[in-house]
Amino acid sequence: MSPITKERLETIHLRMLPFVHNTPILTSATINRICDAQVYFKCENFQKMGAFKMRGALNAILSLPESERKNGVVTHSSGNFAQAVSLAAKNLQVPAYIVMPETAPIVKKEAVLGYGGQITECTPTLEAREQTSKTIMDRTGATFIHPSNDMDVILGNATAAMELIEVHPDLDWVLCPVGGGGLIAGTALAVNTFTDSCKTWGGEPLNADDAYRSMISGKIETNTNPQTIADGLKTQLGHLNFPIIQEYVSGITRVSETEIKNAMRLLWERMKIVVEPSSAVALAAILKETDAIKGKKVGIILSGGNVDLGKLPFQ
Amino acid sequence: MSPITKERLETIHLRMLPFVHNTPILTSATINRICDAQVYFKCENFQKMGAFKMRGALNAILSLPESERKNGVVTHSSGNFAQAVSLAAKNLQVPAYIVMPETAPIVKKEAVLGYGGQITECTPTLEAREQTSKTIMDRTGATFIHPSNDMDVILGNATAAMELIEVHPDLDWVLCPVGGGGLIAGTALAVNTFTDSCKTWGGEPLNADDAYRSMISGKIETNTNPQTIADGLKTQLGHLNFPIIQEYVSGITRVSETEIKNAMRLLWERMKIVVEPSSAVALAAILKETDAIKGKKVGIILSGGNVDLGKLPFQ
Repeated sequence: MSPITKERLETIHLRMLPFVHNTPILTSATINRICDAQVYFKCENFQKMGAFKMRGALNAILSLPESERKNGVVTHSSGNFAQAVSLAAKNLQVPAYIVMPETAPIVKKEAVLGYGGQITECTPTLEAREQTSKTIMDRTGATFIHPSNDMDVILGNATAAMELIEVHPDLDWVLCPVGGGGLIAGTALAVNTFTDSCKTWGGEPLNADDAYRSMISGKIETNTNPQTIADGLKTQLGHLNFPIIQEYVSGITRVSETEIKNAMRLLWERMKIVVEPSSAVALAAILKETDAIKGKKVGIILSGGNVDLGKLPFQ
Repeated sequence: MSPITKERLETIHLRMLPFVHNTPILTSATINRICDAQVYFKCENFQKMGAFKMRGALNAILSLPESERKNGVVTHSSGNFAQAVSLAAKNLQVPAYIVMPETAPIVKKEAVLGYGGQITECTPTLEAREQTSKTIMDRTGATFIHPSNDMDVILGNATAAMELIEVHPDLDWVLCPVGGGGLIAGTALAVNTFTDSCKTWGGEPLNADDAYRSMISGKIETNTNPQTIADGLKTQLGHLNFPIIQEYVSGITRVSETEIKNAMRLLWERMKIVVEPSSAVALAAILKETDAIKGKKVGIILSGGNVDLGKLPFQ
């Protein structure tokens, strides 16, 4: 029994609609042939600010009562979530305070500033980030939003799979990459709420396989200095999303760095779309599980498309 | 008065529909803001085999009487058109003979073979290509198809703009890159046939500006050893497409190599799509003509997305 109702998810989706794209769903005859399956790609790389994170950030801010919302929101991130919070807050005319390590690349700082976020720099440690966030909260009354371990973020993320299922209600599998767990938890809730027998499956880098190990051990495992091209997937699960993943995710397939790069190349070369390595992890997983998905209808959430074009893994 | 009727173009389009994609039309809030205009991108990079060339090749083969079609088709090309003829012929169960210089990259030969084309290699001169093509025609009875200076190819290419105009009938401008002239001639015919006041405009590399000079001199000019990243645009106009261009194209804007690379980066980074440098030439042209298009509705035909990911111009 899902902890969430259709009506609640539909209300959330409706409230978000003015601020997000219902992103296109693309297919590739070549990839279908390789997989011997029907594969539907939900292209969150085409989402506003270039990633599904826009959905979670937006829903988290929309969920705040007006009295709290006006004081703004704060997060610490050097990646997509900082941009997502900045843009979502700007759309809702709410201040966004972004704590970033002083070592963050200038291009990422500029992206946050471009979306209207107010950056506070700190030394590059988790303690400094948390302390700086707390100082801002104390000073402004802003609300902290966690990138993945926040129920409103998870439910916002769920709307990507909802839109996919709305167009293709008869999917057998839905796959997405697993990083902090916010996307796959939301995806699993949507799949469980809106389908009868579809399964949710994750793809995870072998070099950052904390979620795979967590599923086996039954407790949240961590990565020690993980090295993967899928840099959005280095983070660990949280106490809110892990129980959802345990309950509603059927399994996780681990993929090597070479498998991630090959899948990424396939998406770029054959589908002519720019996706980040993390997105390719889900495709890499089904390319490894072709026996299991043979003849099936499979949905894949392509998480985003924010890459540094000067540092691509192609030769 | 257009030399072509709506009915004829509609018949052509209908006949092609089972074999081509009605490609998506994308927009970018960022690019609209930069241009202060509404820009609609017709994404032929998502076309089958990755380029608009599929349309012209297909229509040329479809236009052959059955008695000729069964003998096959021949072309000499080392690029997209070789792949387009191969795939279109395969779909219609017609033999495709592709003459390629023995120096052509293996990856291009493999692409042609992958689409079912039969390759005959020759020395890398125009004379050898033409002689080899003629030998094949004599032996097999196959019909030669020129990549751009062929009326059926031009009319096939026209269907991309037709589909764009069908969705956005109130465009003020339609732009496309100018290479051999087959795309812009087809685009201009579609614009002239299906709109009252929309203008067709071209983008061309400054380093291969033969069409720009041809428009001024009134005769077909050539390029001498042109050096441009937009390698699909080095070819010259032909006696069939040049009169159409003279009559129906309002002008051509020339762009530098840096302008092409910047426009290409914008398409990749902001729209998250893989396009070839030639496609970026049309966007580069409007970025140079922002005064002229301010507040207007502008269509751009993105010609294709076949690039070598190992040799990208990004740093």
